[in-house]
Amino acid sequence: MSPDKYEPLTIETLADRLGSVEAICKIVGDDTSKWKINEVGDGNLNLVYTVSSNSGNIIVKQALPYVRLVGDSWPLPLSRSFYEHEVLVRQAKRDPGSVPEIYYFNKEQAIIAMEMLLPHVILRKKLIAGDKIDGLAQRLGEFCARTAFRGSDLSLQTADKKSDTAMFQGNLALMAITESLVFTDPYFQAEMNHHTDGLDPVVKILRSDVKMKSEAQRMLMKFTANTETLCHGDLHSGSVMCTDNETKVIDPEFGYYGPMGFDIGMLISNYLMAYFSQPGHRSSETLLEYQNWILEVIIETCAAFQNEFKKLWNSERTGILFPRSMFEDQGDSSEFALNNMLEHIWQDAVAICGIEMHRRVLSLAHNADFEEIDDAKKRSQLEARNLMMGRDLILNNKSIKNASELTDLAKKFNSENYL
Amino acid sequence: MSPDKYEPLTIETLADRLGSVEAICKIVGDDTSKWKINEVGDGNLNLVYTVSSNSGNIIVKQALPYVRLVGDSWPLPLSRSFYEHEVLVRQAKRDPGSVPEIYYFNKEQAIIAMEMLLPHVILRKKLIAGDKIDGLAQRLGEFCARTAFRGSDLSLQTADKKSDTAMFQGNLALMAITESLVFTDPYFQAEMNHHTDGLDPVVKILRSDVKMKSEAQRMLMKFTANTETLCHGDLHSGSVMCTDNETKVIDPEFGYYGPMGFDIGMLISNYLMAYFSQPGHRSSETLLEYQNWILEVIIETCAAFQNEFKKLWNSERTGILFPRSMFEDQGDSSEFALNNMLEHIWQDAVAICGIEMHRRVLSLAHNADFEEIDDAKKRSQLEARNLMMGRDLILNNKSIKNASELTDLAKKFNSENYL
Repeated sequence: MSPDKYEPLTIETLADRLGSVEAICKIVGDDTSKWKINEVGDGNLNLVYTVSSNSGNIIVKQALPYVRLVGDSWPLPLSRSFYEHEVLVRQAKRDPGSVPEIYYFNKEQAIIAMEMLLPHVILRKKLIAGDKIDGLAQRLGEFCARTAFRGSDLSLQTADKKSDTAMFQGNLALMAITESLVFTDPYFQAEMNHHTDGLDPVVKILRSDVKMKSEAQRMLMKFTANTETLCHGDLHSGSVMCTDNETKVIDPEFGYYGPMGFDIGMLISNYLMAYFSQPGHRSSETLLEYQNWILEVIIETCAAFQNEFKKLWNSERTGILFPRSMFEDQGDSSEFALNNMLEHIWQDAVAICGIEMHRRVLSLAHNADFEEIDDAKKRSQLEARNLMMGRDLILNNKSIKNASELTDLAKKFNSENYL
Repeated sequence: MSPDKYEPLTIETLADRLGSVEAICKIVGDDTSKWKINEVGDGNLNLVYTVSSNSGNIIVKQALPYVRLVGDSWPLPLSRSFYEHEVLVRQAKRDPGSVPEIYYFNKEQAIIAMEMLLPHVILRKKLIAGDKIDGLAQRLGEFCARTAFRGSDLSLQTADKKSDTAMFQGNLALMAITESLVFTDPYFQAEMNHHTDGLDPVVKILRSDVKMKSEAQRMLMKFTANTETLCHGDLHSGSVMCTDNETKVIDPEFGYYGPMGFDIGMLISNYLMAYFSQPGHRSSETLLEYQNWILEVIIETCAAFQNEFKKLWNSERTGILFPRSMFEDQGDSSEFALNNMLEHIWQDAVAICGIEMHRRVLSLAHNADFEEIDDAKKRSQLEARNLMMGRDLILNNKSIKNASELTDLAKKFNSENYL
């Protein structure tokens, strides 16, 4: 592969530049004249190409030296592609089958060539369309538990965990995006913010809630200074692809060492936004039933997380934390410690969940769930419910006991009108 | 300075090897025949020499490739000298005058030549002797607050803090010592443990307390995965040197990124051990008065910490955490957040304090405070009070509100007899 100097791929140059890569030809053949190449990137950051031929299909993802959504006025280092690759390798090991297979990685060109997920569709699109996915909750609950547990000092050798933690501190540009867009910008008039007309009264409630803002910043301190495990870092419904019965996780370029509750908290948040936005996408005949399905997914995701985490706690606790020498080997149960740990994870998840519900409505990068509702008045009413529940979650993360209390709260907020 | 290959200094070779270092000759002169050289190391890890002449004095500290206390069966990397130097540089910047001045550093030889503190004495010796030190509490309270605040995301640019966090992950061998000796070994029959005869009944209480052990391990998770600030890492009364009215902090080779409450918690712990051990060192005439002085030092240390931290919060909050844009710039006070932060730091400090009280009596490296009490029966009785209070602090770190409640507790435990 030449040239050495970074250059963005184009539809015209892709075949020339990747046609000699053996691992790629193994999938799509070495006759590049048969390659059908399309640019399909709809994310905020990168170039994404599909390469298809009679023999197979691949995805070619290339980082740009800036934020695609904003343009070259917002530079962003190519190294995020390196970190994405590093995370994918670890996720594949910690939860086999959960992420696309990697065929080829080029650090200088910031290119990852990987398995094309076909006929998978972005989960967010399915949630907007009202599709159900078999096994969704189980798959993602297990993914969050396995990556959280197996990337932590509960499981890893501490020397390995520390050198990995050190390496991922380098992904700071991506962390900086989360630090400002997620945890800070929603709570003041940041330059890149925008929100739906009519939301001002609710925005005012949030921005004048000192207790809630303090709690959001306490969670930022956890984001930036709790290196419990390697997180996906951006596990929203646009980072998940599904068929009717298969679910895969993609796009971990925001990977960082953070709280064990981060990924599952962000995931639940995106389910809740799907839930609150449903009245903008379907009529009352199917509305309630589909909304309830989403809440069921939340409950089952949390149950799958807890069950898997417990299983790993009892079977794979080989790190420095809570060693068997201090518990089981002395005839003591470690269940009390396990339950404390799950409670700690849950509280972090609930607070993160609330913060994510705010930033997707108030900060730069909004969700299609709400954005695709054309009627601004309706949209603002649904967003208001979502914002007010987010506030409740941030304020009360220590008293909301479990997923079923959380989904009950969602039903309550779903019946309120704030505007 | 030759040779390049690491070689331990000896009294015979020191002058030859350091005699051409300009920064050293500036202090002790370049006529090495006039240098008086002594080995004075009484710590657990390193070689320490004094070099004196008519013109001045220096300390030369050199790491050994193993733990001095144990011997070459326990290897320990020379890189700890590099980390010690890095911490000293940061502490000098964050709290000018708090640490010895550095004259010379040689990474390959793991040598730091620094200011000889004269006529300073190790704080622990003074506490055993019943000496009082003017300004001790103020000095160390401010030191803990300044290093905690100025090394955190409350103050630093986050890119600098992240690269520093990454670098210090490399000090893993020293962290591993704390992880096992402090947080884990006290709570099971670890190979290197030893404790005073007669303590078994109390040790049994501790080791069968599942709730307390879980809490100790929760704190280990914070030690190993909360990178809030650059900690000294070993701030016991042997890492502090004093005259009657001046106090300096030494020996930060255990420096690591950890909880903001770590250093002050370990410091309070060492005061409490000095407190409980006093009946082994003096007669009842002066006992109560000196014990009360120690408790006063604890209260004043915590007050100095809080006052200084508050001052810095209001005047130097330039990091990403709790930005003024979210509080003051909107006309909101950030006092609620500040008080939450101080509470968080305090709770961590109380738990760390209790754990340190355990490990110094049950694990490998004991304190002279208790060790120098020859009467094993008396020693065990005093150690028992200390162990039982440590347990209380670990269990109740969230409900002990302040330093005055903590010192009241100390008085209560000081009047109990457990054996």
